Amino acid sequence: MRVLIDEREKKYMVGDEEFHTDFGFIKKEDIINSKAGDILKTHLGREFRVVEPNVNDYIDLMERKCSIILPKDLGIVTAYTGLGAGKRVVDAGTGAGATAIHFANVVGPSGEVHTYEIREDFAEIAERNVKGFGLENVQVKCKDITEGIDEENLDMVFLDLPKPWEVAEDAKKALKIGGYIASYTPFVEQVQILQRVLKKVGFSKVESFECILRGIEVKSRGTRPKTRMAGHTGYLTFARHL
Amino acid sequence: MRVLIDEREKKYMVGDEEFHTDFGFIKKEDIINSKAGDILKTHLGREFRVVEPNVNDYIDLMERKCSIILPKDLGIVTAYTGLGAGKRVVDAGTGAGATAIHFANVVGPSGEVHTYEIREDFAEIAERNVKGFGLENVQVKCKDITEGIDEENLDMVFLDLPKPWEVAEDAKKALKIGGYIASYTPFVEQVQILQRVLKKVGFSKVESFECILRGIEVKSRGTRPKTRMAGHTGYLTFARHL
Amino acid sequence: MRVLIDEREKKYMVGDEEFHTDFGFIKKEDIINSKAGDILKTHLGREFRVVEPNVNDYIDLMERKCSIILPKDLGIVTAYTGLGAGKRVVDAGTGAGATAIHFANVVGPSGEVHTYEIREDFAEIAERNVKGFGLENVQVKCKDITEGIDEENLDMVFLDLPKPWEVAEDAKKALKIGGYIASYTPFVEQVQILQRVLKKVGFSKVESFECILRGIEVKSRGTRPKTRMAGHTGYLTFARHL
Amino acid sequence: MRVLIDEREKKYMVGDEEFHTDFGFIKKEDIINSKAGDILKTHLGREFRVVEPNVNDYIDLMERKCSIILPKDLGIVTAYTGLGAGKRVVDAGTGAGATAIHFANVVGPSGEVHTYEIREDFAEIAERNVKGFGLENVQVKCKDITEGIDEENLDMVFLDLPKPWEVAEDAKKALKIGGYIASYTPFVEQVQILQRVLKKVGFSKVESFECILRGIEVKSRGTRPKTRMAGHTGYLTFARHL
Repeated sequence: MRVLIDEREKKYMVGDEEFHTDFGFIKKEDIINSKAGDILKTHLGREFRVVEPNVNDYIDLMERKCSIILPKDLGIVTAYTGLGAGKRVVDAGTGAGATAIHFANVVGPSGEVHTYEIREDFAEIAERNVKGFGLENVQVKCKDITEGIDEENLDMVFLDLPKPWEVAEDAKKALKIGGYIASYTPFVEQVQILQRVLKKVGFSKVESFECILRGIEVKSRGTRPKTRMAGHTGYLTFARHL
Repeated sequence: MRVLIDEREKKYMVGDEEFHTDFGFIKKEDIINSKAGDILKTHLGREFRVVEPNVNDYIDLMERKCSIILPKDLGIVTAYTGLGAGKRVVDAGTGAGATAIHFANVVGPSGEVHTYEIREDFAEIAERNVKGFGLENVQVKCKDITEGIDEENLDMVFLDLPKPWEVAEDAKKALKIGGYIASYTPFVEQVQILQRVLKKVGFSKVESFECILRGIEVKSRGTRPKTRMAGHTGYLTFARHL
Repeated sequence: MRVLIDEREKKYMVGDEEFHTDFGFIKKEDIINSKAGDILKTHLGREFRVVEPNVNDYIDLMERKCSIILPKDLGIVTAYTGLGAGKRVVDAGTGAGATAIHFANVVGPSGEVHTYEIREDFAEIAERNVKGFGLENVQVKCKDITEGIDEENLDMVFLDLPKPWEVAEDAKKALKIGGYIASYTPFVEQVQILQRVLKKVGFSKVESFECILRGIEVKSRGTRPKTRMAGHTGYLTFARHL
Repeated sequence: MRVLIDEREKKYMVGDEEFHTDFGFIKKEDIINSKAGDILKTHLGREFRVVEPNVNDYIDLMERKCSIILPKDLGIVTAYTGLGAGKRVVDAGTGAGATAIHFANVVGPSGEVHTYEIREDFAEIAERNVKGFGLENVQVKCKDITEGIDEENLDMVFLDLPKPWEVAEDAKKALKIGGYIASYTPFVEQVQILQRVLKKVGFSKVESFECILRGIEVKSRGTRPKTRMAGHTGYLTFARHL
């Protein structure tokens, strides 16, 4: 998998084959022999830069059939729970696999991500996406996580589910002492139920947040926050197994 | 290094020695033989839980003589730049080492963090803190980064400096094609100069953000955003070497 | 009632009598003969400026025994409902009268504010505060507004009550066609119930907001949002009788 | 001037003449004889409600050729400066007159708004808009406010100008002791210059803010902040003449 960028800074994901765009085509052998930093030319002479592929490039370009959690929210989860290389994570529901791929990039080959998806069609897309990025530390499971978590001794259980509280008790059993449960939910009502269940089940340090990322624009006419911003994505709820 | 938590959920960092608190003391041998999940008792019978030490626990408890960047801001940096296991990072200025330790936890043993600090006293604290957490992938350098970056082929250069633009040109040379420069600065004026220099030096995708993390409180009397929140920490500026 | 400001920009409310401070005293006759813009001197020679008293000066300095709604939130109510000179308002609960005084300042002598307070002690404080500012367009009523609204043909009914929905039906009857109900409530749960009841009772354009006022600091070292800000005061809910 | 609302809650401004819509037409005599609360029927039997016209209805429907300041920001100005019935205001630049009309509605017939506009075409639109709402307390002046303020003894000078600092000195002379200068500017650079000039000219309590109004959505599927919100409109800067 290679990422090419054209003169307009538009990104393309390219396999080991001839590549066609509105700027002309690039020959298969040119692509196969290229490495990050090279400039490839189409038969019309337009230039494409080969870029070291980044997890965000890949997620932006991969196959998706459902909405994904934004990097800003996954970044808060990573930072808050102390996620890093070698950690063991369970993730549900998988969707197209963006969250699992994001965490897999962080935990690396010495870590593990086991991701549960109830819908077969999503699990298949996720499987393709995981393989497409060459990740060997992700296990996509087409399974209902509310029926049980197979893994043990986890550093984090991350839930992107309508009713994350249904997994609270099993998550507690599956987590290390010191491990975190984390959840992404769009609605206040979900936060309310989840916080109550997490406390009841015996989790500590139950907290919820929202992360508002505000762009700042520096132009010749002046500096100001961007006019457009997302008013809300979802609430992040955390609790620790102590 | 072990982290203990008392009945009030207060955290302690404990070495291989007898441990004294206002709840009594715990014997050296009890501590040495303990593992995460164990409950240790003081001579007064008070209970302390042994917890799998987390990078945030460690940073909270380690020696500091200067303010640190909050996890929320480092999380945005990690997510935005696609940082993960195996990545190569340069960081400046080190301070007490919190940022370097945070990134070192993410990139893991197969990655590297080289951190530049101009003040010898800070570099010494950072060195102790890095070793205290057992990290072998961090190199603390007592060196002025504006005089040059020794490393090459980097995935990210992160700058927590008053004048980050002084490093823009060297950072570009030190980064992989596709790599990121990222900067944390408290003031708008810094963002203005930095954005202009980054564009001039030839970086792409120059963008600045602020991350506002808002706590949500679920209590028996009702749910509401927390009354207290930080109005501002710093601006995050990113650019990519394409 | 006069407002004096000292050299530190501290404000004082002064009646027709000798005035004592830590900067010395000012004679009764000097105070009585003063007008806005004059500078009065204490017997120690310290200067106090006489200021045209403003409704906010007065509310800041008047007697209070309970928390008040901040100007930012009242300003949104005024602007959103098109409040202005000559409008007829009902307000509940009064508290120390700050909200009623704020609205009375807007609607002026040709307008009316009728404010309902269930606690006698608060109603008495409010009555004193209203008179102290010389307002003749405010009627303080020690009465439970949930038992009925005496007034008719109102432009706005403003509710600062724990259960504002109990007044929804009576408010609708008391409002002009085109008039607004507005409510200030700290908790999400209150917003949820209120919105449902307002829709059920037949109000149109039911909307809720929160107003986040963020200070910007321009100092010689740089410009930035203020570190301290209120994370939350209350939610404002509006609906129109169409 | 009458405001009608159709079954879809769409608003229309109607003069003393036959009224045509996609729902049919309403006869001139029906319109002339109507009052707030009446229901008028088109020749096709569709219903239109007559509504007590509100300043916001009028501003929404009146002729505009330029962007206007949102009610949220004008509400903060009103609240912060203690604006109310009987106050004397100077406003510049007028644009279509929305700000002047907003303030005129607050200060009422016993107050005054003098609004300065340098462009003749805008001043003419503003004049028509002011008259269309029947306001007699607004004076539209086609004049460059940087050449001097004709009025004295003002409670507020409000500036919606690219270089509001050019008016700082004259504003100070025109204000009462205790009066306010207020300014709306989109860019940080404007805030920086304005704050410095206001302090230099001798204003007190120089402060800047931004007002973020966030909608909250209560739906059957759950409660959450609205997805869409304005990331930024403008900064509000205030100073007091003490």
